[in-house]
Amino acid sequence: MEPGPPGCSRPAEPGPRLRRLCGADQEASVALLSRARAEAELQRCVPAVAAVLPAGGSGERMGVPTPKQFCPILDRPLISYTLQALERVCWIKDIVVAVTRENMETMKGIIQRYQHQRISLVEAGVTRHRSIFSGLKALAQDQPDSQLSKPEVVIIHDAVRPFVEEDVLLKVVTAAKEHGCSDYDLEFGTECLHLALKYCHIKAKLVEGSPDLWKVTYKRDLYAAESIIKERISQQICMVMDTKEDEELVGHRLEEMLKNEFSHVKVTSGALGHTGRDLQQIILEQCYNFVCVNVGAYEFEETQKLLDVLKESDLSILYPVVVISVHFLDCKSVPFGQKMENLMQIREFAKEVKKRNILLCGLLIYYPQDEQKLQDSLRQGATIIATLIKERNSGLVGQLLVA
Amino acid sequence: MEPGPPGCSRPAEPGPRLRRLCGADQEASVALLSRARAEAELQRCVPAVAAVLPAGGSGERMGVPTPKQFCPILDRPLISYTLQALERVCWIKDIVVAVTRENMETMKGIIQRYQHQRISLVEAGVTRHRSIFSGLKALAQDQPDSQLSKPEVVIIHDAVRPFVEEDVLLKVVTAAKEHGCSDYDLEFGTECLHLALKYCHIKAKLVEGSPDLWKVTYKRDLYAAESIIKERISQQICMVMDTKEDEELVGHRLEEMLKNEFSHVKVTSGALGHTGRDLQQIILEQCYNFVCVNVGAYEFEETQKLLDVLKESDLSILYPVVVISVHFLDCKSVPFGQKMENLMQIREFAKEVKKRNILLCGLLIYYPQDEQKLQDSLRQGATIIATLIKERNSGLVGQLLVA
Repeated sequence: MEPGPPGCSRPAEPGPRLRRLCGADQEASVALLSRARAEAELQRCVPAVAAVLPAGGSGERMGVPTPKQFCPILDRPLISYTLQALERVCWIKDIVVAVTRENMETMKGIIQRYQHQRISLVEAGVTRHRSIFSGLKALAQDQPDSQLSKPEVVIIHDAVRPFVEEDVLLKVVTAAKEHGCSDYDLEFGTECLHLALKYCHIKAKLVEGSPDLWKVTYKRDLYAAESIIKERISQQICMVMDTKEDEELVGHRLEEMLKNEFSHVKVTSGALGHTGRDLQQIILEQCYNFVCVNVGAYEFEETQKLLDVLKESDLSILYPVVVISVHFLDCKSVPFGQKMENLMQIREFAKEVKKRNILLCGLLIYYPQDEQKLQDSLRQGATIIATLIKERNSGLVGQLLVA
Repeated sequence: MEPGPPGCSRPAEPGPRLRRLCGADQEASVALLSRARAEAELQRCVPAVAAVLPAGGSGERMGVPTPKQFCPILDRPLISYTLQALERVCWIKDIVVAVTRENMETMKGIIQRYQHQRISLVEAGVTRHRSIFSGLKALAQDQPDSQLSKPEVVIIHDAVRPFVEEDVLLKVVTAAKEHGCSDYDLEFGTECLHLALKYCHIKAKLVEGSPDLWKVTYKRDLYAAESIIKERISQQICMVMDTKEDEELVGHRLEEMLKNEFSHVKVTSGALGHTGRDLQQIILEQCYNFVCVNVGAYEFEETQKLLDVLKESDLSILYPVVVISVHFLDCKSVPFGQKMENLMQIREFAKEVKKRNILLCGLLIYYPQDEQKLQDSLRQGATIIATLIKERNSGLVGQLLVA
C-alpha cells in the first residue's frame, strides 16, 4: 500500500489568550518581559524551523486497543501534550502531523478541542519513514495547495515523547545547521545515525537528550506520564482570600501550613485585586490550583466570584483546574449539622463547573478555641488540600471534606 | 576497598498465616488445593535453588537522596516488593541480599516489619559483581557460620525489578540446568552473556523476559511501579452485608453497580459467614478492599465487626487495606444534619485503624423514593468507592463522602 497524497489541511486557529505568552508554565510576571525580549532575539537567530510528527502507529506493545498517541492522560490524548510542548517553542513555525486516514477526524477534533495552533495534518504512510516523507513533502515549496513555508531545518519528533524541552530542540536545530543533519533521534539514536550515514551519506550527530525525553511505549509509561504531569501542575497554588485580614487570622495561618505542601503559594484578594497579586495575572501564569477562603456571611461568596472568573478564562482547556472552597466551623455560632446542610449547595456548583473541566470540592475546617486543636485542624486541612490537588480525581467532585 | 566478610545473618521468621499459602494474589479457594499439589510436584522436579540480590547501589540516576531500592511505594520500600515476589516462589530455598554496611540496619528493619522469610544478609561490595560474589560465597558450603544449604542453581536478580513472575524464574532455572549457566540477565542481557563467555568460559543463554520485568531506574519508574501495584490490588473488592436481604434491596443494587467498576466483587455476610463466602477465606485470598453495608439501628455495627477481624489478621502488613463504611439516608426518618453528626464517629475509628495500615472512609448514600434518583445515587456511590480504592490515599482517611 502506497501512502496517499499529502492533502495538507490546516485547521482554524481560535488562539486562546493564554497561548500568546508562548512560554513555560510557572513563569513569574516579572520574568515575562525579559522572556519576550529573549524570544525576539531567538526568532532572529534561529533558522526557519518546522516539525514533523509521525503519528500513524498502532501501539501494539501498549496492550490496549487505542493507539498509544491517542491514549488519555488526565482525559486528554497523549499527542495533545506533545503538540503543546512543541507549540510553546515560538520559533517552530509549522508542525505537520502524519496520521492514518481512519484517525484523521479524531485528530482534527483534538486540535479543535485543545485549540492547538500552527498544526497541519497529512496522511500517514504504512511505515514511520513513509509518514515522515509525507510530512516533508507537505513542507516542500512545490506543493500547490500548501500554505506552509519551506523551512531550513525540520525536526522529526515522535508523537509519543511528550516531555521535550525547548533547550533540547534548540541544541538539535543548532547541530543541524552546523552538521547538516535533518533528522534526530535521541535515546535510540545510534541506529538512526548509522542508517543516515549508510543510505543517505549524510553526516549525523547525536544530540544529548534528557531522561525526561523518553518514549511512551508500554502501559506503565502512560502511568508514569500521568504522574509526571500531575506533579508538574500541582507545584503551585493560589489562595484567594481577604488579604487585608489580620495576620493572626485563620486564612494566613492556613497559608503557612500550605507552604509545607507546595513549593509556591500565591495569595490574591480575588477578582478585584485590591492588594496582593491580581487573579487575572495568576491565571495568565497558568496556575491550576485554587484555594478559596470564605469567611463572609454568605457561604460561597468568594468561591462564586472565583468560579465566574475561571469560567471566563481559557485556563481549564488543557488541564483540569482544582478549586477548593474553604469554610470554617465555629461551633458556638452554627451547629455542625446545620453548617453541613448549608454547605451541601456545593454539589450543585460542582456539577455545573465540572462541564468546564473545573473540579470543585469543599473543605470545612473546625475552628476550636483551643490553640493546639486549631493547629491540628489547619494541618489536616492542608493535607486534604494537598491530596485533592495532587490526585486531581474527578470522582470526588462536589464532596465536602472535614478537617 | 575489598568487600567485608560475608557475616551471614538470618533474621527471625515470624511467619504470618498468609504466607503459608506461598501463592499468587486472587486465587480462588477451590484452586488452592490443586495449586498445593502442583507446588509439591515442582518442589520435586526443580533443583535446589537460591537467589542472590545485589542491593548495594546508590541510585544516582533517580535524582533522589534515597537509594532506589529503598524508595517507598505505597509507603513500603521497593526492595520489599522484590523480596515478596521471590518469596512467593516456594522452590527458592534461600534469598541472599547484599547491602552496604550503612544500610544493614535499615534492611533488617524492613525484613522484620514486612515479615520476609528465607532472607539472609551479606555486606555488599563496591561493585555489583563484588556484591554478587559476596552472596555466592555465603551460599558456598565451606562457610563455617552459614546455615544455608548449597544450591544447585543460583538466580541473580536485581533488587529493583519488583515484578518478576514465577514462570520466568522457572525458565531461567531450567535453562541453567540445561546450559550450565548460573547467572541471568534479561532486558540488558547480551552484555552479560558476552562477559560470561569471555572471562568465565561459561555457556550462557538469554531467557526471554516479559515487559513487566523492567528495572526501576528513574523517578518515573517509581511512579509507574506505584500505579501498577495500585492497579493490581484494586481489581477485586469484598462486600460485607446481610446476604439474606431481599434481592431488590439496596445492598444488592449497589453490588450490581460495583460490578461495572471492579473485575471481581465477592460478597459475604460478615464475620460469622452464615451464607455466602466466609470473610476469613476472603482475607486468606488477599483481597485488600472492603465495602461494608450498614443498615442496622446502630450505625457502625457491621463496620466495627469487620475492622475487628481485619485487625486480627495480617492482611495489612504488606498493603494498605481500604475499608468503606456505607450508610443510607432515608430523609423521612432522620434529617441530613443529624445523620451527618451521628456518622462523624468515623473519624475516631479511622484514626485508630490507620495505625494498622487500614484506610477507613465513610460513604452516605441518599435513598430517595424516586427510582431514577436512587439509581443516580447508587451510581455515584460506586464511582466514589472506585476512586477511594484505586487512589488508596491516606490523606482522605476518616472522611465522610456523600452520594
